[in-house]
Amino acid sequence: MPEIDDATAERHREKMAKRKAVQDAEVAGKTVEKGLLLVHTGPGKGKSTAAFGLALRMLGHGRRVGVVQFIKGARDAGERRALAAFGDAVAWHTMGEGFTWETQDLRRDIAAAERAWAQAEALMADPSIALLLLDELNIALRYDYLELGRVLAALAARRPELHVVVTGRNAKADLLAAADLVTEFGQVRHPFAAGVKAQEGIEF
Amino acid sequence: MPEIDDATAERHREKMAKRKAVQDAEVAGKTVEKGLLLVHTGPGKGKSTAAFGLALRMLGHGRRVGVVQFIKGARDAGERRALAAFGDAVAWHTMGEGFTWETQDLRRDIAAAERAWAQAEALMADPSIALLLLDELNIALRYDYLELGRVLAALAARRPELHVVVTGRNAKADLLAAADLVTEFGQVRHPFAAGVKAQEGIEF
Repeated sequence: MPEIDDATAERHREKMAKRKAVQDAEVAGKTVEKGLLLVHTGPGKGKSTAAFGLALRMLGHGRRVGVVQFIKGARDAGERRALAAFGDAVAWHTMGEGFTWETQDLRRDIAAAERAWAQAEALMADPSIALLLLDELNIALRYDYLELGRVLAALAARRPELHVVVTGRNAKADLLAAADLVTEFGQVRHPFAAGVKAQEGIEF
Repeated sequence: MPEIDDATAERHREKMAKRKAVQDAEVAGKTVEKGLLLVHTGPGKGKSTAAFGLALRMLGHGRRVGVVQFIKGARDAGERRALAAFGDAVAWHTMGEGFTWETQDLRRDIAAAERAWAQAEALMADPSIALLLLDELNIALRYDYLELGRVLAALAARRPELHVVVTGRNAKADLLAAADLVTEFGQVRHPFAAGVKAQEGIEF
């Protein structure tokens, strides 16, 4: 890197001091605390992974986390084993039965979604849970395995301090409208396109 | 949910059997195994969180993870404490000095970025590391605290099995071009806009 002369350093200092003032004012203006409804959607990779990262963060603060998987994944092996290190602080429930093209059984898919939703409601009612991860709930809603109205009503009526993160592609518009934070995961480039297979620690 | 009649169930089964055949053929076509360069960029929340989720997944497979933070965050408290549960399996290095508007010192920022990069190179050379997280490296590159050419050359010359994930907004075009997987985190809605403050377990 080139040497920085004093004038450059001073211009930088002044610019950053102004920026800090703006940042500080912004932070001071935020005063509301409440449980958030977060939605991770879009075609890109990382929707569930980011939700598990959030779980990790919450666990780091000594809080409990609930996980309900609406689609049973072969892909969760790594996270599940890692989160086992936190023992009781993670309530993990895999209720789904695999992707719908694996089961090929509509009635079984619907029954699995119903069981998963019942588990989600139980965890919503458990005051020890600070964050509830409803993994791939968007898939169950998209295929109408669960009624959207019922899900939205329960989310709206949840404990006010409970954070909920919903993952999966094709989130319903009414769920997005109800959310406090929506992140759209855009796929810019994916290694599968170059013939790279799913690898341990990356895709599962 | 309404009752499913037999004809509907059968149509579903046929459709899903076809879909499974397509999926299976796709998976069978992917045979390459290699260390990937992943980039998480864009204005949305979750870029670092998703990278920490990936770290969690790798740890679940019993592999070691390296973390170099190019910008020291007050925001990492939760992840850092949680990852401490994995002891030696996580090599965590916070080399940055806080956001550039906090330090207001260009020379110090550059020196910190240099130290962070030296640490990154050391971890790239350590064969026990399966995944290296270069958190907010994009920020250091954007402000030219580090020379992009040097960083790209080192990434290209890394151990072929090493996965690297680079996070931060405004990733440089040449880094994106070199990446195997790029996820653009789009911000659709953010609670700060509604006056909600940063909360434990969510933003830090």
